[in-house]
Amino acid sequence: MSDNANIDDRYVVGVDYGTLSGRAVVVRVSDGAELGTAEHAYRHGVIDATLPATGETLPPDWALQDPDDYREVLKNAVPAALAAAGVPADRVVGIGTDFTACTFVPALRDGTPLCELPELRSRKHAYPKLWKHHAAQAHADRINALAHERKEPWIARYGGKISSEWQFAKALQVLEEDPEIFQRTERWIEAADWIIWQLCGQETRNVCTAGYKGIFQDGRYPSQEYLTALHPDFTSIVDKLDHPQSPLGDRAGGLTAEAAAWTGLPEGIAVAIGNVDAHVTSPAAQAIAPGQLVLIMGTSTCHVMNGETVAEVPGMCGVVYGGITAGMWGFEAGQSGVGDIFAWYVEHGVPAEYKALAEERGIGAHTLLSELAAEQPVGAHGLVALDWWNGNRSLLVDHELSGVLIGQTLATRAPDIYRALLESTAFGTRMIIEAFEEAGTPVTELVVAGGLLTNAVLMQIYADVTRRPLGLIGSAQGPALGSAIHAAVAAGCYPDVPTASAAMGSRSPHSYQPDTARADAYDKLYAEYRTLHDYFGRGGNDVLHRLRAIRNAAVSA
Amino acid sequence: MSDNANIDDRYVVGVDYGTLSGRAVVVRVSDGAELGTAEHAYRHGVIDATLPATGETLPPDWALQDPDDYREVLKNAVPAALAAAGVPADRVVGIGTDFTACTFVPALRDGTPLCELPELRSRKHAYPKLWKHHAAQAHADRINALAHERKEPWIARYGGKISSEWQFAKALQVLEEDPEIFQRTERWIEAADWIIWQLCGQETRNVCTAGYKGIFQDGRYPSQEYLTALHPDFTSIVDKLDHPQSPLGDRAGGLTAEAAAWTGLPEGIAVAIGNVDAHVTSPAAQAIAPGQLVLIMGTSTCHVMNGETVAEVPGMCGVVYGGITAGMWGFEAGQSGVGDIFAWYVEHGVPAEYKALAEERGIGAHTLLSELAAEQPVGAHGLVALDWWNGNRSLLVDHELSGVLIGQTLATRAPDIYRALLESTAFGTRMIIEAFEEAGTPVTELVVAGGLLTNAVLMQIYADVTRRPLGLIGSAQGPALGSAIHAAVAAGCYPDVPTASAAMGSRSPHSYQPDTARADAYDKLYAEYRTLHDYFGRGGNDVLHRLRAIRNAAVSA
Repeated sequence: MSDNANIDDRYVVGVDYGTLSGRAVVVRVSDGAELGTAEHAYRHGVIDATLPATGETLPPDWALQDPDDYREVLKNAVPAALAAAGVPADRVVGIGTDFTACTFVPALRDGTPLCELPELRSRKHAYPKLWKHHAAQAHADRINALAHERKEPWIARYGGKISSEWQFAKALQVLEEDPEIFQRTERWIEAADWIIWQLCGQETRNVCTAGYKGIFQDGRYPSQEYLTALHPDFTSIVDKLDHPQSPLGDRAGGLTAEAAAWTGLPEGIAVAIGNVDAHVTSPAAQAIAPGQLVLIMGTSTCHVMNGETVAEVPGMCGVVYGGITAGMWGFEAGQSGVGDIFAWYVEHGVPAEYKALAEERGIGAHTLLSELAAEQPVGAHGLVALDWWNGNRSLLVDHELSGVLIGQTLATRAPDIYRALLESTAFGTRMIIEAFEEAGTPVTELVVAGGLLTNAVLMQIYADVTRRPLGLIGSAQGPALGSAIHAAVAAGCYPDVPTASAAMGSRSPHSYQPDTARADAYDKLYAEYRTLHDYFGRGGNDVLHRLRAIRNAAVSA
Repeated sequence: MSDNANIDDRYVVGVDYGTLSGRAVVVRVSDGAELGTAEHAYRHGVIDATLPATGETLPPDWALQDPDDYREVLKNAVPAALAAAGVPADRVVGIGTDFTACTFVPALRDGTPLCELPELRSRKHAYPKLWKHHAAQAHADRINALAHERKEPWIARYGGKISSEWQFAKALQVLEEDPEIFQRTERWIEAADWIIWQLCGQETRNVCTAGYKGIFQDGRYPSQEYLTALHPDFTSIVDKLDHPQSPLGDRAGGLTAEAAAWTGLPEGIAVAIGNVDAHVTSPAAQAIAPGQLVLIMGTSTCHVMNGETVAEVPGMCGVVYGGITAGMWGFEAGQSGVGDIFAWYVEHGVPAEYKALAEERGIGAHTLLSELAAEQPVGAHGLVALDWWNGNRSLLVDHELSGVLIGQTLATRAPDIYRALLESTAFGTRMIIEAFEEAGTPVTELVVAGGLLTNAVLMQIYADVTRRPLGLIGSAQGPALGSAIHAAVAAGCYPDVPTASAAMGSRSPHSYQPDTARADAYDKLYAEYRTLHDYFGRGGNDVLHRLRAIRNAAVSA
């Protein structure tokens, strides 16, 4: 560890790879001050309608990306952030990144993505499948059914269900739909690790994605017997994945000359091991103690929390040793639609009068609706919603569920529905908290990161519904700051991530306190939410699945 | 009966009293031609927020009217219709009216409404309670519970439930909340009969409202024992109601000099016995044969149908001998929200882009959304709704239910929801049809009257969902024409209503035919509707009632 005099003039770069863009931030090592930032949008964005190379129409629920867009972030956002910070490049000592996950790249042995081979450019399965590629549900269903049938021990670590978003489901889809691409894939690699390969010129694998997205538990992948039973040709998946794994905060290597030229950073500086956008945020929020549940709230919400002991929580995304911070068990859960639902409602369900009023007052529609909604007592709207517009990631792990809204009358107005939607996501989070606690993992505090933390009405609802104090991350770009913290550790400026987090992260603790009267009132609505959750989500009435099947048949007829 | 030469130059006036206005039409007796029409809006409209005389805030779910607004229709709309028709007043031989029901007037022995007494002008219970006054549910609940406890035979005639909208629930509310008003009420009278009193100067009572709204069955009102058990002072209700009853189409009396001066019509012409807007429409639609279910579709839907024998249909509004046409059993059912729900959605749930597009194309928002919705195959929206935004009149007779919408995703758009709402009302009608048929009363044809018949998309959905041919009334003002038909009978121009209906009514039979493929597809969605209907409406999960109670407590806290 360097002394303070030194680190006061040392800097690290964090790069956060999101769904539509990458964002770089230049951070001072000594105190985490964010001195400059820049964003670069992916030229191809999310490829979900047609394949650019051929114009081929993609099937429903597909979502691909073009990996060269990731390199472009390094070439554009990093120099721009550096310029904005006014920091000389030679004072930068490390770079760290975080990525959406599971975003899964089929590549050659040298890291070349298959989609960059001219002869495979026209093959849709050659492209990275983005996290929200949802066309492998049938494959996930088989993975899960077989795991339970064979009583595979690892399935409990994932709450009983492997998601269709994850590596094995996506790879099995490739094998069955385009076996040649599967065979030609020499390395299946998370984008989180692929980008590190681009930076330091050698393959590394982080424990986080291997554990959460890759079914790597207790030192091994699923057995050959299991994989053979799934599909005789699927056993080679393990060879294509396998590699020594590195703890988060380790140094992956030194920045290559090529990557130094892209970024304008000094050759040879530390490149941190890859990481995931949600998990990397905990140290940025100074929230890595057991019981501190970090909610990264944006279009969707990821919940991450450290625990001292392993617990198998039904319906969780996963629990991975070292998955958030080395030496602790990292728990992950999630809600697949949060800000997305509010945005959907404002765009597709709110009449013009509210938008006109918001414009007149010079505020956004979300702000206006939140303020109007806040005026009413708990329960005055008479509504309850299930927040499944984009399926349910935890506890049900079911992307074929859909939204429910009950209690509308002719007197129901837009702020009523808006508030019911805000509340429904808080109820969803409370379900997750209760599942943690029922499995013996207490949750004592909520710490919110992500774009939605600026909505004070929403934050108060979360505090009231969960009866827990709620703190806020200090940074507007938590993942990028978290990546920078890992870069500082990889560069040797701090001995470990917790120490770096204490120095560079920030959090306003207890920004919101639960109100007892409102919490009591919410208990009644939550009880209704819970009953409907089980009725529609746990087999009481499988109507949402039948409606999805009817819809799919009608649309494809 | 007069000969044709005579009736070709004779005319009758029909006056339809709706919720917000009265409409008069001048009709030629020989063929039902509508020669002139005029509408007059009630000055006080629906009194549901504050009492005009005092500014007092009315409790939730109240709905009153000012009876002088009804007289104003006679003074304004009738002369205007006459002028528009260009018919000399002396050729008018009769006047008939129809009214919303149960709209219930507390009056003195001479017909003076209590609210017109200066000393009672400030008392809210002195005013007529409009049909949609929904604040007497607790009273209706007690009426029903006691009827079942005592096994009262009449309760089955009302499908097992007396509505909170009807006479006994409304009067019991007055007795318990303002006993002085109850005591001072010498005559409790339907507005349908009260307006006849204004026209001919003497009290009459029609069999229709006495039967459907007043628990008059087999020649008597509920017993004194029953009423005493309900409330010791409630027995006098029967004295305040009792009066010889007249069949529909009878002459109530001659037009008084005063009413002749109001209307510009000749003194002494026939005034027909009072009638109800829904029931009077059947003869106007030439749909009084058993099996012809008439749907009067507007803000709500009334279903009326004649049968040759009595049947006790669970959840029906009522069955009354002579209730639609003398000599037959008249069945009534209803849906308390139909066009109201569509209007609510367009006003409060449709984003600006659709209204802009409708304006650009010079069509209404309903037309645009219907056209867009019609483009999709059955089930493509993935949605099912329960049409309970305004409660459920049949089969559940429960005004404290509320709406349900399930299946929304981030891809759901306004035309999807609009279509699901249209379909939900068709499913509600199918529930009613099946209840009729299960009780041994076949339904062979739907005949639609009312404002919604112009929506071809909606009509086709009804034909498909119910698998029945659907005809349309020929008149745009069915109730007023029906009142005119009754006036012609009262004036002696025809021997009875069926004969007058054949000459003066009109209908386009089989305007829509069900499509087998779509009907098959709808069977699947209807099965889901039915399951949800029973779950939310028949005790599977009483959440809608609890949400209503939570809402009421929150709002009044």
